[in-house]
Amino acid sequence: MARQLYELCGQDPARVFSPYCWRARMALLHKGLDFASVPWRFTETERLAFAQHDKVPVLVDGDQVIPDSWAIARHLDAAYPATPSLLHGRPEAYAFVIGWNDTVLAAGISRLIVSDIPKLLDPPQRDYFETTRTRRFGMPLEQVTAGREERLPAFRATLQPLRAALAGQPFLGGAAPDYADFVVFGSFMWARSTSPLRLLEPEDAIWAWRERMLDHAGGAARQAPCFGA
Amino acid sequence: MARQLYELCGQDPARVFSPYCWRARMALLHKGLDFASVPWRFTETERLAFAQHDKVPVLVDGDQVIPDSWAIARHLDAAYPATPSLLHGRPEAYAFVIGWNDTVLAAGISRLIVSDIPKLLDPPQRDYFETTRTRRFGMPLEQVTAGREERLPAFRATLQPLRAALAGQPFLGGAAPDYADFVVFGSFMWARSTSPLRLLEPEDAIWAWRERMLDHAGGAARQAPCFGA
Repeated sequence: MARQLYELCGQDPARVFSPYCWRARMALLHKGLDFASVPWRFTETERLAFAQHDKVPVLVDGDQVIPDSWAIARHLDAAYPATPSLLHGRPEAYAFVIGWNDTVLAAGISRLIVSDIPKLLDPPQRDYFETTRTRRFGMPLEQVTAGREERLPAFRATLQPLRAALAGQPFLGGAAPDYADFVVFGSFMWARSTSPLRLLEPEDAIWAWRERMLDHAGGAARQAPCFGA
Repeated sequence: MARQLYELCGQDPARVFSPYCWRARMALLHKGLDFASVPWRFTETERLAFAQHDKVPVLVDGDQVIPDSWAIARHLDAAYPATPSLLHGRPEAYAFVIGWNDTVLAAGISRLIVSDIPKLLDPPQRDYFETTRTRRFGMPLEQVTAGREERLPAFRATLQPLRAALAGQPFLGGAAPDYADFVVFGSFMWARSTSPLRLLEPEDAIWAWRERMLDHAGGAARQAPCFGA
């Protein structure tokens, strides 16, 4: 197989849940580029030694090895210029939406779902995840997500910029999705893959956008194992 | 004069303070296009009848009349393709930063400074402003901004997406500013023109970005009447 994407998964190798891996996966799907998913788990750093990297996603594209979702996006646009664009020749124009995703959306989702993730992992990965994340948050993960149902309205209020942007166009990228959509969608797929918590309400314009994203590229994301909402 | 920009001002015609007018003004300055500023005040709707519009900015460009800051930006890119670009041929890519600006940044600034604005206005404009804004907020304007010094840390925390984006590049547009910068800068110029409240701290990366913006296009924005910080 010419193209392989190393992706983070849980016990079930089909349950890929890293938001960064979802950015890379959607980028490949958007461009119609075939790839084999290579399941990878948190503690398997030695399996990435060939990439001189310790995290996924890592893309193997023929004889090229590209670690890091952002480098993968730029590589794919450069290597396959005839396919639908991700960055439209202006990667710098995506810094703001990535900044918002990382500091607001992903940070907010994390505080709602992080305690669900260990349940999907094998014991060694579970230990790794609980230890590193408990240290990061400075408290047990169950405490991080405590009262989450009551905190959902406040979380949903932080999504106003998305609603405002999507009021005038179907995707952040315009008439078709682009890397801005894949970054934000990656965060929602992270939640969808790991948690039964319903982040969005069906009448939310962001729900409708997410439905369009689930349908994109032949409905590939919709096929992924998830908790249904 | 071939080009005129109708802009909102206070008693002092040089104190232009509308964030939307600042978007248009920075767009013209960025492109090096001369224009005469035409002072306009809230209640002077009949003076905009020629534009079939009731708000500023309105740009008169030769025999073309363009109301609305967004239409002005698209017009300027289309009419002057040899000048530095605002939207890089992809206006849809700016929807998200505009959405964030309008729902987070401008909304947050408004709750910190709105009670300062009447002091800059002549009595008829002052009455108009206080009546319409009191209705919008559902309370007296002094009450909207009450406790603002104590609320500054929370406001500054909402600016994390900007800091994240500017960590890797000097402007939202990349190596040079573009319309994303002018939208966000317009909100900061609105505050700077109308309020003595210091929104940013000098050690904030956003302060440094704002300094670069004040220097842009020959330091034009720095010359505008303001409260100093």
